[in-house]
Amino acid sequence: MGSVTDRRIVVRVVDGNEVRRPDTLVAEEPLEIRVDGRPLAVTMRTPGDDVDLALGFLLTEGLIGGASDVTTAKHCSDSDFNVLEVVLAEGVPPPAVDPTRNFYTSSSCGVCGKASIDAVRTLSRYAVADDPIRVDPATLDGLPERLRTRQKVFDRTGGLHAAGLFTADGELVCLREDVGRHNAVDKVIGWAVREARVPLTGHILLVSGRASFELTQKASMAGIPVLAAVSAPSTLAVDLAGELGMTLVGFLRPGRMNLYTGADRVTGPVQQGADR
Amino acid sequence: MGSVTDRRIVVRVVDGNEVRRPDTLVAEEPLEIRVDGRPLAVTMRTPGDDVDLALGFLLTEGLIGGASDVTTAKHCSDSDFNVLEVVLAEGVPPPAVDPTRNFYTSSSCGVCGKASIDAVRTLSRYAVADDPIRVDPATLDGLPERLRTRQKVFDRTGGLHAAGLFTADGELVCLREDVGRHNAVDKVIGWAVREARVPLTGHILLVSGRASFELTQKASMAGIPVLAAVSAPSTLAVDLAGELGMTLVGFLRPGRMNLYTGADRVTGPVQQGADR
Repeated sequence: MGSVTDRRIVVRVVDGNEVRRPDTLVAEEPLEIRVDGRPLAVTMRTPGDDVDLALGFLLTEGLIGGASDVTTAKHCSDSDFNVLEVVLAEGVPPPAVDPTRNFYTSSSCGVCGKASIDAVRTLSRYAVADDPIRVDPATLDGLPERLRTRQKVFDRTGGLHAAGLFTADGELVCLREDVGRHNAVDKVIGWAVREARVPLTGHILLVSGRASFELTQKASMAGIPVLAAVSAPSTLAVDLAGELGMTLVGFLRPGRMNLYTGADRVTGPVQQGADR
Repeated sequence: MGSVTDRRIVVRVVDGNEVRRPDTLVAEEPLEIRVDGRPLAVTMRTPGDDVDLALGFLLTEGLIGGASDVTTAKHCSDSDFNVLEVVLAEGVPPPAVDPTRNFYTSSSCGVCGKASIDAVRTLSRYAVADDPIRVDPATLDGLPERLRTRQKVFDRTGGLHAAGLFTADGELVCLREDVGRHNAVDKVIGWAVREARVPLTGHILLVSGRASFELTQKASMAGIPVLAAVSAPSTLAVDLAGELGMTLVGFLRPGRMNLYTGADRVTGPVQQGADR
C-alpha cells in the first residue's frame, strides 16, 4: 500500500533564519481506474482506500448502482498500487466511449450551452427531494469541528481536503482525506457502496472546502439529502441543489451558516418562513 | 459574456436568528473547448477570459507552443459563451485521440505504475533549470498580500482561487481568479501566450492554495522557474519540481516560507548552505 504521507528535506526560512529539516508532506500519486481491462480514468490521489475511491467514482459517474454491480475491485498487482482493476458483474453495461465526459459527442452550435451542461450532468436514481431528514442547526454548526479534530493527516501536512458523512444527529460515520476534494468525497461514497448503505437517506455530507457543481452532483448520485460546506458554494451548485431538492449549506461555522436551498430541513428558528 | 458573479437568495443564520437576503456567489459554468471543430474537454470554470483559459489549457497540455500555433480562438456564437472554438494553424498536429489523458492507451500490468505517471506527464520544451532568476525572500513573502489585495471577486464571494504572475522584483503582471485552481493558472498562462511572453523566464507563479503535481507541471510547460504556494505542496509536486530544476516554495507567509526545491534561487540568508 502506498503511503499517505512522505518526508522531504525542506529549507525552512523564518524571519531570515534558515533551517534544513525533514518535512512531512501529503502523498500524491496517480491512480488509474480500469474497468473490465480497459483504462477509464487517471486521478491524482492520496494513496489509500483506493477500492473505495474507484467504487465511489463509478457510482457518482452513474456507471454502477451499488456493490452488486461489481464482481471484483482490486489493485493490479501486489507491487503496484497505482492501478485499480474493476470487473463489472454480468449484465452491467460497460462504460460508454467517453464516460468521464471529457470526450463526448458533439452537438450543433445552436444548442451548445445546453450540450455543455448535459455533458457534465449525470442523473441520480435517487430522489433526495423526498428525504424527510430534519437537522438541528446547533448540530449542524458543530460538524466542522468534529471533522477537523478527526483529520489526522491534515494536522501533519496541512495539505488535505476532507469529506465526512454524518447522521442527522451529528454522528460521524465515515471520514476520508485526500489531496483532491473530489477524491475525498468519492472515497466516502465508495465506502458506503461497499457497506451497502447507498442510498444515503438521512445523511449529511460535509466537505472541508467549497461546494461546487460536481460535489453537489456526487452527493445526489449517492442519495445524500444535505450537503454542507465550510466555505462558499458556486452558482451552479446552488442551482443544481435547488433543482434536486437538496439542502445546501455554505460557510458553516460555529453559530452561523448560510442555507442556500432546502432551508426547511434545518429545524428551529429557520423553519418558519424559509422557502426550500 | 457570462457573469463572474451572480446573486441568489440565502437564509443566513447567525446565533439562531434567521435573515433572508441576496448573497453574491461566484459563477460556475461549463466551458467546452473545441479544437478544429472537435470537442476536446469540458471544464467547470468561472466565465471570463475564456480565450486565455483555452490557450493556457492547450499550451500546458502540450498541444500548442504559442499563439502562432493558433489561427482563431473565439466563442461559438455571440449568444453562447460556454463553447470556445479554437482553430489550429496549418501544420499544427491535431490533438491525439485522448489528449486530456483521461483516456490513453493501456499498458501491461508490469509497468502500470510507470504508465500511470506517463499518462499524466507532459514534457515541456523549456528548461527551467537553466533560468538564472534570483528572488529576495523579503520580496517573495510579500507576494501573497499583493495577490490578496487585488482579488476583487474573492472579496465579494469567498469562492475563488487565484493565480498571479510576478516578476523577480515582485511586480504583479497578471492576476486571474477562477472557481477552479487549474483554470486560474491556465488563464494566467493563456494571457502570456496571447501576449507572446512564453517562455516566462524570470517569473514567479503564485497560487492561492496548494501546490499539486498538475500545477507544477503547468508552470514548467510555460517555462516558469519559480512556483510559490500559500499552502502545502504534495510529494509529487516536490519530486517533479526537483527533477525539473524548478524552485518550489510552500507555506509562503509574512516572514516565513518553506523552500522545497531550488532554494539557491532565493537570495539572502537562504543562499548559504542551501542545496537545490
